[in-house]
Amino acid sequence: MAPAHPFEAAVALQPQGEGVWRGRTSPAYANMIGPYGGITAAQCLQSVLGHPERLGDPIAFTVNFAAAIADGEFLLRPRPARTNRSTQHWIVEMVQDGRLVATATAVTATRRETWSGHEARMPEAPRPEDVPRALRRGVEWIRRYEMRFVEGAFPQQWDGELREGSLSRLWVRDDPPRPLDFASLTAIADVFFPRVWLRRAKPTPIGTVSMTVYYHADAAQLAATGAGHLLLQAQGQGFGGGYFDHGGQLWDEAGALLATTHQVVYYKE
Amino acid sequence: MAPAHPFEAAVALQPQGEGVWRGRTSPAYANMIGPYGGITAAQCLQSVLGHPERLGDPIAFTVNFAAAIADGEFLLRPRPARTNRSTQHWIVEMVQDGRLVATATAVTATRRETWSGHEARMPEAPRPEDVPRALRRGVEWIRRYEMRFVEGAFPQQWDGELREGSLSRLWVRDDPPRPLDFASLTAIADVFFPRVWLRRAKPTPIGTVSMTVYYHADAAQLAATGAGHLLLQAQGQGFGGGYFDHGGQLWDEAGALLATTHQVVYYKE
Repeated sequence: MAPAHPFEAAVALQPQGEGVWRGRTSPAYANMIGPYGGITAAQCLQSVLGHPERLGDPIAFTVNFAAAIADGEFLLRPRPARTNRSTQHWIVEMVQDGRLVATATAVTATRRETWSGHEARMPEAPRPEDVPRALRRGVEWIRRYEMRFVEGAFPQQWDGELREGSLSRLWVRDDPPRPLDFASLTAIADVFFPRVWLRRAKPTPIGTVSMTVYYHADAAQLAATGAGHLLLQAQGQGFGGGYFDHGGQLWDEAGALLATTHQVVYYKE
Repeated sequence: MAPAHPFEAAVALQPQGEGVWRGRTSPAYANMIGPYGGITAAQCLQSVLGHPERLGDPIAFTVNFAAAIADGEFLLRPRPARTNRSTQHWIVEMVQDGRLVATATAVTATRRETWSGHEARMPEAPRPEDVPRALRRGVEWIRRYEMRFVEGAFPQQWDGELREGSLSRLWVRDDPPRPLDFASLTAIADVFFPRVWLRRAKPTPIGTVSMTVYYHADAAQLAATGAGHLLLQAQGQGFGGGYFDHGGQLWDEAGALLATTHQVVYYKE
């Protein structure tokens, strides 16, 4: 049997009795300290997706990173707080050694056919095969993604020179490639390196505090995307008092808007 | 004694024993059915702001509208789920007749002096006194805000003609004017009429599902803003399968970025 993709292993959860699931951090997605935030987000969402009472597909998901997560086991408590006819509201708590380390809320819903007309259009970009792959150095989770920067690449020199803007555009997919699903799309939404590094060319310590993803694709659209490249874009908005935020979009190679995302990030100085 | 501003009355909460507060919907902020979503958001945040264990000021706030809220009383259960040295993570549940009607999460923190450089700049716009006030027709909550549209006003004709874009820019403040605070800023972040109405010029039923606000102002900046006008901007991103989202920004009259916001909204057809 072929070994599971590292992503499958990372989001695998074991039932632990009434409303509780057990998971563990994945060395394949290790960050400098503790796990990559995107994999923590995916684990929180996966606890909803795998819940026997889940209704529909994700519409909105917010994860709040409450504390550093240690390498090892954690518990997830997803709770359907309100179930309506076609929508459902979830509260998720992630706990380690009896203390809360992350909270999340999710809205799932059965979608219906309506008028459709995405306004956030995919920007012009060379095809992924025409863009060199970024070097796979640094922390382990970086090696789990193929990244090809079209614009706004990781600073090559930490020379402290200020930049006006922090727009990045890049092609991204799992490495090895893997058919996209809601959990992996959520993990990918966190791949942007900190916008404050791009603005300042200075490696100040950072940590994402809260991230939101809105899903514009249904399961059929994700299936159509398959293991193809996604074009991602993000740009910073406010920077001050120790926190900055960015807004971003994710399209598939055919130009379909799959999701939009936002996050607010702590920075030290 | 001068009567309280309707906003004060709307967000007033009474302690009801261990970790529970009681409030009631405000006729002054009534929507077509139930209350204006912005006031529900403000009530959820207020339950955190008024909590005796609260640490610091809001950094991120997400509210999920789980069910229609009936006119009358509700209970709020704000819970500090994790308290760190300088940050705190909150889970809030709003309950009516024993059933959950809204969930929220908040991150509060003590801010520190750091490098600052907002990237989302206030767009050029005529001064508020040079822009006519929008007519105060329709539902009651609309009368609680002075709105002056610079661009992307409410459709004047429901002629079903499609528009490419849904950018709106408008000056907004409380009516009567009132010094800004975190709760009223949060309420104002929801004043945008539905982007799908602007795109389609068709009055399809809608309901906000989830809204997030990131705060870029501290209490001193809000005090400096006082009762002045705010310039708001919002633009839609994805529209399809019964849901659309928008992203937006709020600046004060002096051009300081106070907050960014985004929301995802259900629409019927």
